[in-house]
Amino acid sequence: MGLIKAIVLLSGGLDSTVVLAQAIKNNRECLAISFNYGQRHKIELESAKIIAAYYNVSHKIIKLDSSIFGQSSLLSNHDGVEVPKDRNARQISESSTPTTYVPARNTIFLSIAMGQAENFQACEIYIGPNALDTKYPDCSESFIHAFQRVIKVATKQSVNGNPPRLVAPLLELNKTEIIKLGLSLDAPLHLSFSCYDPTILGAPCLRCDACILRKDGFDSVAGG
Amino acid sequence: MGLIKAIVLLSGGLDSTVVLAQAIKNNRECLAISFNYGQRHKIELESAKIIAAYYNVSHKIIKLDSSIFGQSSLLSNHDGVEVPKDRNARQISESSTPTTYVPARNTIFLSIAMGQAENFQACEIYIGPNALDTKYPDCSESFIHAFQRVIKVATKQSVNGNPPRLVAPLLELNKTEIIKLGLSLDAPLHLSFSCYDPTILGAPCLRCDACILRKDGFDSVAGG
Repeated sequence: MGLIKAIVLLSGGLDSTVVLAQAIKNNRECLAISFNYGQRHKIELESAKIIAAYYNVSHKIIKLDSSIFGQSSLLSNHDGVEVPKDRNARQISESSTPTTYVPARNTIFLSIAMGQAENFQACEIYIGPNALDTKYPDCSESFIHAFQRVIKVATKQSVNGNPPRLVAPLLELNKTEIIKLGLSLDAPLHLSFSCYDPTILGAPCLRCDACILRKDGFDSVAGG
Repeated sequence: MGLIKAIVLLSGGLDSTVVLAQAIKNNRECLAISFNYGQRHKIELESAKIIAAYYNVSHKIIKLDSSIFGQSSLLSNHDGVEVPKDRNARQISESSTPTTYVPARNTIFLSIAMGQAENFQACEIYIGPNALDTKYPDCSESFIHAFQRVIKVATKQSVNGNPPRLVAPLLELNKTEIIKLGLSLDAPLHLSFSCYDPTILGAPCLRCDACILRKDGFDSVAGG
């Protein structure tokens, strides 16, 4: 009998790298999926490719026209909207919905993952929202539960009584805990890329929320 | 104060034409959305354009790569899978999930509509599943309810306390009832296009499930 199959949403960032490591640790046969959706930090897809290759898992990059999304500072076609910079962890956590929020993004990603799960006959879909993502509505525990209910009714897999299970192993973890988990799983964190607004040469800006949370996380692990 | 805004999923078929007519009757300011997703019957998009123009509503055609969907006889990139032909209404209703089912299609469409609703500040999203669609899991009442729950948590509109309402006015109607409703609303049914597998010149095949259910519906209205 073969391994249990799983779809893993892999952006190429730190969190989804740990999620993939967890799926591998769980002995899953993975199909990693990444999205090319007009993100400023499209270079993360290079990391996604390398990380999928590191684990020798199948990898699919799905292209979506950025016009299907609304306004967001994360998208390269909205250059008038700035990616927030130089905020500390407290400012990030106390903000309202950040401009880096992309309307309906994770719902669209999970919908596509659900279709891919049916094709791949996957029993699980792994996704990486975490305790620091509380300002993104589509990263909340309520969202994960609500989408699980959709999965239970929406496809032929559900009709046949085997809808995939949504697995969100980082949901209650902060960045320090995610890094610790990643280290314990031997995840290739050095291959991941987190910046929302890289330089033209592809270097992380070190000033956006993603860069700051990543640095704080590593500093805390190193110091703790 | 302006009209209440609504997103309407408009394929160009009979059902969604009646749904748009209902939204107009309800005095909504509509943004109609159609999808170019590699369907064999892409010509339906011409009808969608004409119907949107008939009602003078904004219209957006969103392109999706057909590779994001799984196998389906409805997609032109799956030419090995035949669209079922010459089945009568009983055979259609008694079949299992038809080959014209496209994995995750309506979930993907609604996810995108949810994002568009946020951009358009829509209070409602109209969609046209009906009582004959019971073999498509993503047309069921349970699916509509489950997706409504996602809408209630997934976007900034939900955080702000005004998630759009999912409106499915045809959910309990059969084709005869839909046509009668359309006629009572003066919907331009003659502009709609239903065939799943049109000829190379764009004429309906008159033999697929969609053609047969459409013909049966009109015959029943004419005879009743």
